[in-house]
Amino acid sequence: MENKILKKIDSPQDVKNLSVSELEPLCDEIRETLIEILSKNGGHLSSNLGVVELSVALHRVFESPKDQIVWDVGHQSYTHKILTGRKERLNTLRTKNGLSGFPTPKESEHDAFATGHSSTSLAAAFGLARAKTIAGEDGHVVAVVGDGAASGGMFYEGLNNIGRYHDRPVVILNDNKVSISKNIGGVAKYLSEIRVRPKYFKAKDKIERFITELPFIGKWLRRRIIRSKSMLKYALYHSTWFEEFGFTYLGPVDGHDVNSLCEVLERAKFLNKPVFVHVETVKGKGYKYAEENPGAYHGVSCFDIQKGNGVNITSEGFSEAFGKILTRLGKEDASICAISPAMKYASGLNLFATEYPRRFIDVGIAEPLAVTCAAGMAKNGLVPVVAIYSTFLQRSYDQVLHDAAIDNLHIVLAVDRAGIVGADGETHQGIYDVAFLSTIPNVTIYSPSNITELELCLNMAIYDEKGVVAVRYPKGCPETVAERFDLSDTEKTLYKSRKDSVSCLVITYGREYAQCVKAIEMLEQENIGIDILKLVKLEASADVIDIINKYDNVIFIEEGVERGSVSELFGSELVKSGFKGKYTTRTLGNGFISHQTVNEALEEYKLDSKNIYKIIKETI
Amino acid sequence: MENKILKKIDSPQDVKNLSVSELEPLCDEIRETLIEILSKNGGHLSSNLGVVELSVALHRVFESPKDQIVWDVGHQSYTHKILTGRKERLNTLRTKNGLSGFPTPKESEHDAFATGHSSTSLAAAFGLARAKTIAGEDGHVVAVVGDGAASGGMFYEGLNNIGRYHDRPVVILNDNKVSISKNIGGVAKYLSEIRVRPKYFKAKDKIERFITELPFIGKWLRRRIIRSKSMLKYALYHSTWFEEFGFTYLGPVDGHDVNSLCEVLERAKFLNKPVFVHVETVKGKGYKYAEENPGAYHGVSCFDIQKGNGVNITSEGFSEAFGKILTRLGKEDASICAISPAMKYASGLNLFATEYPRRFIDVGIAEPLAVTCAAGMAKNGLVPVVAIYSTFLQRSYDQVLHDAAIDNLHIVLAVDRAGIVGADGETHQGIYDVAFLSTIPNVTIYSPSNITELELCLNMAIYDEKGVVAVRYPKGCPETVAERFDLSDTEKTLYKSRKDSVSCLVITYGREYAQCVKAIEMLEQENIGIDILKLVKLEASADVIDIINKYDNVIFIEEGVERGSVSELFGSELVKSGFKGKYTTRTLGNGFISHQTVNEALEEYKLDSKNIYKIIKETI
Repeated sequence: MENKILKKIDSPQDVKNLSVSELEPLCDEIRETLIEILSKNGGHLSSNLGVVELSVALHRVFESPKDQIVWDVGHQSYTHKILTGRKERLNTLRTKNGLSGFPTPKESEHDAFATGHSSTSLAAAFGLARAKTIAGEDGHVVAVVGDGAASGGMFYEGLNNIGRYHDRPVVILNDNKVSISKNIGGVAKYLSEIRVRPKYFKAKDKIERFITELPFIGKWLRRRIIRSKSMLKYALYHSTWFEEFGFTYLGPVDGHDVNSLCEVLERAKFLNKPVFVHVETVKGKGYKYAEENPGAYHGVSCFDIQKGNGVNITSEGFSEAFGKILTRLGKEDASICAISPAMKYASGLNLFATEYPRRFIDVGIAEPLAVTCAAGMAKNGLVPVVAIYSTFLQRSYDQVLHDAAIDNLHIVLAVDRAGIVGADGETHQGIYDVAFLSTIPNVTIYSPSNITELELCLNMAIYDEKGVVAVRYPKGCPETVAERFDLSDTEKTLYKSRKDSVSCLVITYGREYAQCVKAIEMLEQENIGIDILKLVKLEASADVIDIINKYDNVIFIEEGVERGSVSELFGSELVKSGFKGKYTTRTLGNGFISHQTVNEALEEYKLDSKNIYKIIKETI
Repeated sequence: MENKILKKIDSPQDVKNLSVSELEPLCDEIRETLIEILSKNGGHLSSNLGVVELSVALHRVFESPKDQIVWDVGHQSYTHKILTGRKERLNTLRTKNGLSGFPTPKESEHDAFATGHSSTSLAAAFGLARAKTIAGEDGHVVAVVGDGAASGGMFYEGLNNIGRYHDRPVVILNDNKVSISKNIGGVAKYLSEIRVRPKYFKAKDKIERFITELPFIGKWLRRRIIRSKSMLKYALYHSTWFEEFGFTYLGPVDGHDVNSLCEVLERAKFLNKPVFVHVETVKGKGYKYAEENPGAYHGVSCFDIQKGNGVNITSEGFSEAFGKILTRLGKEDASICAISPAMKYASGLNLFATEYPRRFIDVGIAEPLAVTCAAGMAKNGLVPVVAIYSTFLQRSYDQVLHDAAIDNLHIVLAVDRAGIVGADGETHQGIYDVAFLSTIPNVTIYSPSNITELELCLNMAIYDEKGVVAVRYPKGCPETVAERFDLSDTEKTLYKSRKDSVSCLVITYGREYAQCVKAIEMLEQENIGIDILKLVKLEASADVIDIINKYDNVIFIEEGVERGSVSELFGSELVKSGFKGKYTTRTLGNGFISHQTVNEALEEYKLDSKNIYKIIKETI
């Protein structure tokens, strides 16, 4: 790759300096660069290939950072990063200390607003634009939102609020006809209808012209028309939802025609009122494997460019196991249903969905509804299992509390990507769920450390518990360590080491169990015996507190935030019980964790086996 | 009042047994009963007067509990309660052990789904109806949702999902043209437009008939019409959003004409697909003071029926003080803005809104957007203050974390109705905010115990802190006690009692400070000196932990849930610091708290001064 044009681009100004004829070749070069780098680093391929022209057009027409671009969800911002002075660092994408895979104001002034979760861009743009108006500041605000994100309630809250002010945000709907899983519901249907509307509009124009130009009858009709002007506005002029919300609607525009895009964006820029630009794009555009199967190329690890192989098409580890277990349970029990907020494949639910389509619901990116809908199903006797990423469950806090827990409705939350998530970074960490779910009465939390336990936990969640039950498990595969417990009694099993004289107990759960076992194995090499208590059900029962009280030295190792943690709960229960020993905790503290591999993060936060070995050594 | 007809009604079946001519008089009797009882007990007057006929019609047409009615928000369910066997207990409304002011399945099988927060009914109805279809069960599902609730994102998520299934829920839009504060945004505008559409439809029908019936030109046009049939569907037939979402739209119907309502509901019932019924009602219908000023009569305490006085028209106590302080601060600082999710009056923001209309935004019942919009405004240099009830802030957990805290944007949350809320009960308790906000990094929490402190806290929140700052305060007025601290140093002030020999320390914050002081005063009468530590900023700094470590006996009194509480944090920090004394906590435990007065609840949970006196006595 020579990248003749791309090498001239170090800032948005350079995009403006190009000749019109250089724009298309620039897009080609960017596309090749993206495929090249993502084939090595992994990342969100399809969505980024879909917005190359749109990103170029945005930076040609608007003036970042004075004009602010908010990328909804944000994983489609790679071209934007290339164009805003970060192309040399693109090969560090999603790696420790490298570029984030999402817009991050800490990284660049061109990243106007931090995004990662879906459907927030209109609300953010509303605030940004209101502030500009209030402060009398210059500059435009642009929100770029995918059709998938349009299934989220915040998209609607944004539409509903923006249109009634005289600010001038530009909302760009990046309509690629495929959201992550599959585009769902009325909005998708509506968009597919307006995509074919231009012909209607043309036909309407013709009829209108015909009627008003008729020499004789025309006059008579014209009078009627004048008398019922408002009616005609509805009857003869085209109107979209977006216009009824107070936006000027422009589109649909071919999102791969960079010149048309520039034209429509120029128009939007100078309208001086809320504008809704409807852009049609193709996910995976320009890379045939991704175009053919955009879902599989949504998030990729490294792959072979020529052959297109090596892509993570299916889920693996805990997610896949969860899907298989639930499908097995669903065979025997017709009351089990599964709900996914647009994450069918990634959550491992594809098998369940294929086997029991009637009992599977993909609600779109609508996490609040997912939980309340589950509560409704539970009310009528079914056992709904909501498969949801830990980070997205944050969006359903009130629904878990208010719609499910208050009436003690029995729903199961299969909380995927719990704990550190790796390359996605701070917007996607699953390190809060234990803390925030714990604050809700009637919620039970299980945290299996391996697949066998996952199955036991799901069984207990469905058949033994009442109310809301969360079963949380990390991304990927469990690390294999010699199991020290009889898994048939998972709720509270204390492992006694072979040295009976020891006074040190390590308490942990989930993924950290393997790290702790490895640390203890290292200590056993030195003839130091340490006991370990693995929690599977995260509660501080009186029995467990009694057991702990027999030790002089207790260390709690936890992969989660500190405030509201289980280790904090145990600390408080211990002091109340009159514990006189030493209590040490190691958690993720109270901060945000940036993108890096899981192992790098565990090391940084001293939650890897070597550091656990060290802390034990220090305390004994 | 004789209540000739009402006295015959003990179940929904009795409504069906009435003659048509008895329906209107029944509604009159219900209305009188409502006014009578609410004038004594208080409650949601306007909204209940608005749905008398609708409630009667629903129970005449549908068969509860087989047919399930979900009342969105739920505070308009009094007539429903009267008709479903609870009329004799209506005088116990919102009192301890009496009827709840909201639908509560624990109370009656006719309360199909617990509601209290807005915009959940479509999601619940979606789940209930899906479950009926999946399980092959009989019965209909009806959601009754106000136009105010239609500004919430979950309303849209519900529309977006319901329409694509062959279930047959009936969504009734109770369009009273006034939501709690004022109807906001595109949806409100849209509804006001379709309310006047029937005349357009009629005019269109006329034109259409005229065109097709024209003997000569008509034929020519007809051909055109046939050729562009789909276009005409858009151009000449009426279509609403709701139809584009897959609903059959019926309406608008006069919501005070009980016979028309029965008719349209019968039609909806037998359509066997998702139906959207648009009902126009008048808030406060039938009681002139409430009709004239429905906002003031939204939630009332007791009032004089004849004179209409005694109603809580304005906010009081902390809310009012907050409004005045913010208005004062806003005068000096043009960067201060206020955002309210449809609670302008109740939050005390009316003054600010009048003084600085450009800097005030009512976003409708859209709590997620409220916070993200604030984050956007903060990004552009303003200081947005979101005034929000503690219970509704639960709906913005992810927005606080993901949209504001990650980028450490400086927004202020004025968390009203924090702590026990009294008669509204379990759906509205403000007892979780400390716990869930604590789990989010970059969030600071202040909990003033009186108005002077509230002002100091707001000042510190705006000028001294970074990131997200919550200032939380309870409903109503602070209790007056002799202040024991120099309020100029509010962050951490230890009160030393006059007896220096004591070894007991009570720690508390917020409303409980007054209760603790009263308890200590009682002990001082007995010559027992107790120290007290009042937290205003809820954090366990090393200094404070050092101070506490000087005591043998520490008691933490907290008006909040136990898990994730400040007392739990302190317990954990104490044990880690090697504290060897006795640590006792008293909190609200981990459950839901039903409707009763604040004082009754404090007594039940042993958080009143007498019980605090007792626990101190027990521990020393």
